[in-house]
Amino acid sequence: MKVIVIGATGTIGQAVSEQLAARHEVIRVGNSGGQYQVDIANLASVEALFDRVGKADAVVVAAGNVHFGPLADFTPEQFNIGLQHKLMGQVNVALAAQRHLNDGGSITLTSGIVGAEPIRYGASAATVNGALEGFVRAAAIELPRGLRINAVNPSVLEESMDNYGPYFHGFEPVPGRRVALAYVKSVDGLHTGNVYRVW
Amino acid sequence: MKVIVIGATGTIGQAVSEQLAARHEVIRVGNSGGQYQVDIANLASVEALFDRVGKADAVVVAAGNVHFGPLADFTPEQFNIGLQHKLMGQVNVALAAQRHLNDGGSITLTSGIVGAEPIRYGASAATVNGALEGFVRAAAIELPRGLRINAVNPSVLEESMDNYGPYFHGFEPVPGRRVALAYVKSVDGLHTGNVYRVW
Repeated sequence: MKVIVIGATGTIGQAVSEQLAARHEVIRVGNSGGQYQVDIANLASVEALFDRVGKADAVVVAAGNVHFGPLADFTPEQFNIGLQHKLMGQVNVALAAQRHLNDGGSITLTSGIVGAEPIRYGASAATVNGALEGFVRAAAIELPRGLRINAVNPSVLEESMDNYGPYFHGFEPVPGRRVALAYVKSVDGLHTGNVYRVW
Repeated sequence: MKVIVIGATGTIGQAVSEQLAARHEVIRVGNSGGQYQVDIANLASVEALFDRVGKADAVVVAAGNVHFGPLADFTPEQFNIGLQHKLMGQVNVALAAQRHLNDGGSITLTSGIVGAEPIRYGASAATVNGALEGFVRAAAIELPRGLRINAVNPSVLEESMDNYGPYFHGFEPVPGRRVALAYVKSVDGLHTGNVYRVW
C-alpha cells in the first residue's frame, strides 16, 4: 500500500512511518519538513498535496495545533486556533481523501485523552478531541467506495513528558511506538468509525 | 433563582421556560424574539446581554445552527457554520457566564443524539455535538466560584418530526416537555460536567 503520513516529522508520525515502512510505501509529509509540505488548515493545500502525491491507499494525520490556557481568560480567537487547525485541518484531509484515495482506502485521524479526561488549561483541546471523535463516527457511515475512517486517541507521550509532564501528573505516559500500533491497526485492518484509545 | 433561557422561542426553550417559571424568574432570550435578543456567535453580544439582564443564577442555551448536507459535498465554510454558531455560540455563553453568574450558578448547553448515533448528512452536527460534550467535561473542572456546567443531549423531538422525520427513521422521538426535564435537573440540581441523554 501507499500511505501518506501527515505530521511525519513529529514523535507519533515518525513512529507510525517507521512501522508502516516495514510493509508499505510511506509518503512523509510535514508543514515544513518531510518529502512534501502541506498546510492542513487550508483545504486547497490539502487537495494540492493529494494531486502531487497521486493515488494512495491510506492517509494518516498526526498533526494539529491547539491553544492551551486558563478557561477564565480564553478568547474565541484562541478557541478558533484549535478549531481551524487540529479540527478542520484533519476534517480537510478527510474531505479531500474521500475524492483521492483508492477504493477501500483508509483515513486515520488523531484526537487525544484530554477529551475524555480533561486537564487544567485543556478546554479547547477537549472540545477539539470530542469534535474529532464525533466527526469520525459520522463520516464513517457516509464515506463511499469502501473508504474507512478511524481516530487514535493517545494519552500523553513518554517522549513529551519533559514539556507537558506538569499538566499530566497521574496520567500514564505511553511510548510513541505503542501509540503507533493503533495507527497501524487502522491502516492494515478493516475497522471503520472506531476510536482507538491508547491508555 | 433568576434563569436566562437563550433560544426561549424554540420548541425546547419554550418547554424549559415553562417548567422553570413554576419556581424561578425566567428571562426569555431569542435571536429576534423574546424579551432580550442576542447573537450567540458574537461574544460581545453575549457579554452585552449579561450586562443588560444583570446578575443571574443560571443560563440555559437551547439554540445553535448547523449545516446538514452530504459528506461528499461538504465544504469547510459549511462546517464553520456549526463551529461558529452552535459550538462557539454556546462556548461564548459559557465564557461570559463564568464572569457574570452569581456564585454557584449553572450553565446548561445543548448537544444532540447525532454525535453518538450519526445520521445521513449529519457529519457537522456530529462534530459539533462531540465538541460540546468535550467542552462541558473540561470547563466543569476549571469553572470558579462553584459554577457548574452540563449539557443536554436530546434525541429528535416529537415536535420536529414533520420537518426532520425522514432523517430519523427508527429513532424514538421525545416530546419537548420530557427534554425540558433534563435542563431543569441541571439548573435545580448540583451536577457538573454531566451530559444528560434524553433518549
